Amino acid sequence: MAKEKKLVEAITSMEEDFAQWYTDVVKKAELIDYSSVKGCMILKPDGYAIWENIQAELDRRFKETGVENVYMPMFIPESLLNKEKDHVEGFAPEVAWVTHGGANPLQERLCVRPTSETLFCDFYKNVIQSYRDLPKLYNQWCSVVRWEKETRPFLRSREFLWQEGHTAHATAEEAEERTVQMLHVYADFCEETLAIPVVRGRKTEKEKFAGAEATYTIEALMHDGKALQSGTSHNFGDGFARAFGIQYTDKDNKLQYVHQTSWGMTTRLIGAVIMVHGDDSGLVLPPRIAPVQAMVIPIQQYKEGVLEKAAELKERLSAAGVRVKLDASDKSPGWKFSEQEMRGIPVRIELGPKDMEAGQCVLVRRDTREKTVVSLDELEAKVKELLEAIQNDMFARAKAHRDAHIHDAHNYEEFTETVLHKQGFIRGMWCGEQACEDKIKEDFAATARCMPFDDRQEIAQVCVCCGRPAHKLVYWGKAY
Amino acid sequence: MAKEKKLVEAITSMEEDFAQWYTDVVKKAELIDYSSVKGCMILKPDGYAIWENIQAELDRRFKETGVENVYMPMFIPESLLNKEKDHVEGFAPEVAWVTHGGANPLQERLCVRPTSETLFCDFYKNVIQSYRDLPKLYNQWCSVVRWEKETRPFLRSREFLWQEGHTAHATAEEAEERTVQMLHVYADFCEETLAIPVVRGRKTEKEKFAGAEATYTIEALMHDGKALQSGTSHNFGDGFARAFGIQYTDKDNKLQYVHQTSWGMTTRLIGAVIMVHGDDSGLVLPPRIAPVQAMVIPIQQYKEGVLEKAAELKERLSAAGVRVKLDASDKSPGWKFSEQEMRGIPVRIELGPKDMEAGQCVLVRRDTREKTVVSLDELEAKVKELLEAIQNDMFARAKAHRDAHIHDAHNYEEFTETVLHKQGFIRGMWCGEQACEDKIKEDFAATARCMPFDDRQEIAQVCVCCGRPAHKLVYWGKAY
Repeated sequence: MAKEKKLVEAITSMEEDFAQWYTDVVKKAELIDYSSVKGCMILKPDGYAIWENIQAELDRRFKETGVENVYMPMFIPESLLNKEKDHVEGFAPEVAWVTHGGANPLQERLCVRPTSETLFCDFYKNVIQSYRDLPKLYNQWCSVVRWEKETRPFLRSREFLWQEGHTAHATAEEAEERTVQMLHVYADFCEETLAIPVVRGRKTEKEKFAGAEATYTIEALMHDGKALQSGTSHNFGDGFARAFGIQYTDKDNKLQYVHQTSWGMTTRLIGAVIMVHGDDSGLVLPPRIAPVQAMVIPIQQYKEGVLEKAAELKERLSAAGVRVKLDASDKSPGWKFSEQEMRGIPVRIELGPKDMEAGQCVLVRRDTREKTVVSLDELEAKVKELLEAIQNDMFARAKAHRDAHIHDAHNYEEFTETVLHKQGFIRGMWCGEQACEDKIKEDFAATARCMPFDDRQEIAQVCVCCGRPAHKLVYWGKAY
Repeated sequence: MAKEKKLVEAITSMEEDFAQWYTDVVKKAELIDYSSVKGCMILKPDGYAIWENIQAELDRRFKETGVENVYMPMFIPESLLNKEKDHVEGFAPEVAWVTHGGANPLQERLCVRPTSETLFCDFYKNVIQSYRDLPKLYNQWCSVVRWEKETRPFLRSREFLWQEGHTAHATAEEAEERTVQMLHVYADFCEETLAIPVVRGRKTEKEKFAGAEATYTIEALMHDGKALQSGTSHNFGDGFARAFGIQYTDKDNKLQYVHQTSWGMTTRLIGAVIMVHGDDSGLVLPPRIAPVQAMVIPIQQYKEGVLEKAAELKERLSAAGVRVKLDASDKSPGWKFSEQEMRGIPVRIELGPKDMEAGQCVLVRRDTREKTVVSLDELEAKVKELLEAIQNDMFARAKAHRDAHIHDAHNYEEFTETVLHKQGFIRGMWCGEQACEDKIKEDFAATARCMPFDDRQEIAQVCVCCGRPAHKLVYWGKAY
């Protein structure tokens, strides 16, 4: 019992200190470890396996829309990074510079890619000649580097894993359509696979990506009421094409600039899963991305036949397509329960001598801890049903929590009251002036998270900050 | 016809200039493109898709042996790289150094990983305490950087994609067993999936990996008679463990050093596939890794019903699990044939109005160009059979070619005669002295590729170089 207590005690409660709870979970659930490289993390097997599941599902969704994968070099020559003015201003302060190859200084510095727009542009310039070469719908899975000062596991680190899609189109309309299409791919993935509800919308000019004409975003609400930008999709118009000279001959034999987009999602999504679904016992994983969906834990396993029967259940479930493991170690059942809960494994299957006699086992949901006794005859069907129910209930709960934390503010007094005393998103109208965004940021460290696509509800006619006429609805919030 | 001719003319013939043929194929089959980053290549969709298939199959085989995936930082602090003497001497001359983060110089230089032994050691030092923590069987998929002077697509580039497995074990025996086990995983993969026969063996002291006690290798023979090292597996003994202080408490409560291995395969495998199977019409891909296994090409597609029927065949094959595409573009059939051949797509399916009338289509093998007329009723079964036959025949042909290019030499006169006038491996006994390896390298630029596992045939009793007593059989060869 002493040992079991220790495992549980090691987690700070969410209410007490959310940031510490988060740090405890990523470590105790064995998702990451810190490394000797400041600001970089090690993804351990359980952490990386979640990323593999995210990758597989996102990649499938990308390919369904015609996207192809490629791989570009990880280095960008300084002169190439400098080609698009806004872009270099946004990224140069936080890139890592390679200056030597072996003992020799390089003729030109190379930065480790913080993102690869410039490399794709350089490539597109060479491979796009005619309208027949369009569209180009390329994506790559890789790691990128941004020399951040403050880092947090998954949320912000100097190196992180991501995918970056880069497309080139004949027309502005096609580029805009693709930008929005990929945002919806992201949003649907978050809701259907990660069970995380998101607000879909557009960034303000102040918050958009360096070099973009328009940035679209999905914003999720964490358990502590802070927003997490979970995926972005950018329309570059022909800005990069003009800077890099990417032109094609159209059907009328005229030279035209291409229109481009880019879109990315990162390992930060794992942080979102933790902060949306986790609880004081640790991680709670949605079944669709859980590396292990069910853990069979034998009770009184020293008794004859128990381990064998437990192994049989595992084999049956595995054959039925469930990602299942058996914990046959010599730890106590209580210790195993704690570990399974810490790791967020959606379903626990308990089986002891009495269960065997009765031809049954006990299924325990990780999310609600609800227990169900099921006949062994129905094992596969019941476990699959339960996984489905957990996935759906987790989304419903996250959505109810999110919706309960969206507050409307009609003027600055209400905004102040809300931002100081409530957690979550604040919906307020905005006049469109950056001065109001700056004021809100300065007063409360809150930012315009997005202008939602679904902005039919004009909740007021005036700006929540300055009181002048306003027609844009904005979700405001404090963000990670 | 002018256009078709152009596509074919663009390839140099293998006999004329093998190196130029290779370069032509990688470009014309659209596997890679050169980038603005000297020595780094761009993997285009067809090149990357082959890598994805290699990854999926290798990863499956790794996981079957209990291996788990992780992700380590891409940077190594200089002090960490310096911890194992032989290792740093081997790699320091060819690493890329990061010296600045943004505008600020770093306190300590970081190299971009050329390989990650030092990072894994640093990690293992923290996570291994007891015999219960062993073995650790970790692998990562990533890119690594080695600042090579001469580069060639896939074979040698400054950045390349690979996997690197790193394991830690309680005993020397276990480590040795894992080292050899992974070499066999590599060899079986090459033979079964890439249809490339390999020689399995051990490297000499001179040729082994920097810091290893023993390096095992698989060596493949390219069409031009040169050897390509295609995968290596290293046993480090406890050398790294002593340098990094990786100790565990054994069952008797005594402190012991762990024993470690590492093993890697890279995108160089794609180079091997090209150089073993390709011909003067371009790439020839083994069906098991071909991104597209069959291409449906309609004949007289402007005639009524042809395109519809071709699309139907594509759908049927796709539903049957064949990776199939339809080329419905407005190019001529001849042009499409050339493209399909250049890209190495294993099976072409021709369908024209006459075929439709007869309820048939024509299957054309890429490897032999053999044509078979098949009834549309049997389409799925026949295509699958053909893919299987192509895979097997490609291996058999490569093996026959390889075996025909293994020559025995019993003394230096025979060795000289063979190395000057024949292509391929030369089998010769070796006394074990590096002086003989050095002499052979100096005289003929040939190296000891490996000492085969299967060395029962002592083809002589004396060293092929110095004539002194010898018991080790060596495969000598010129290598990429």
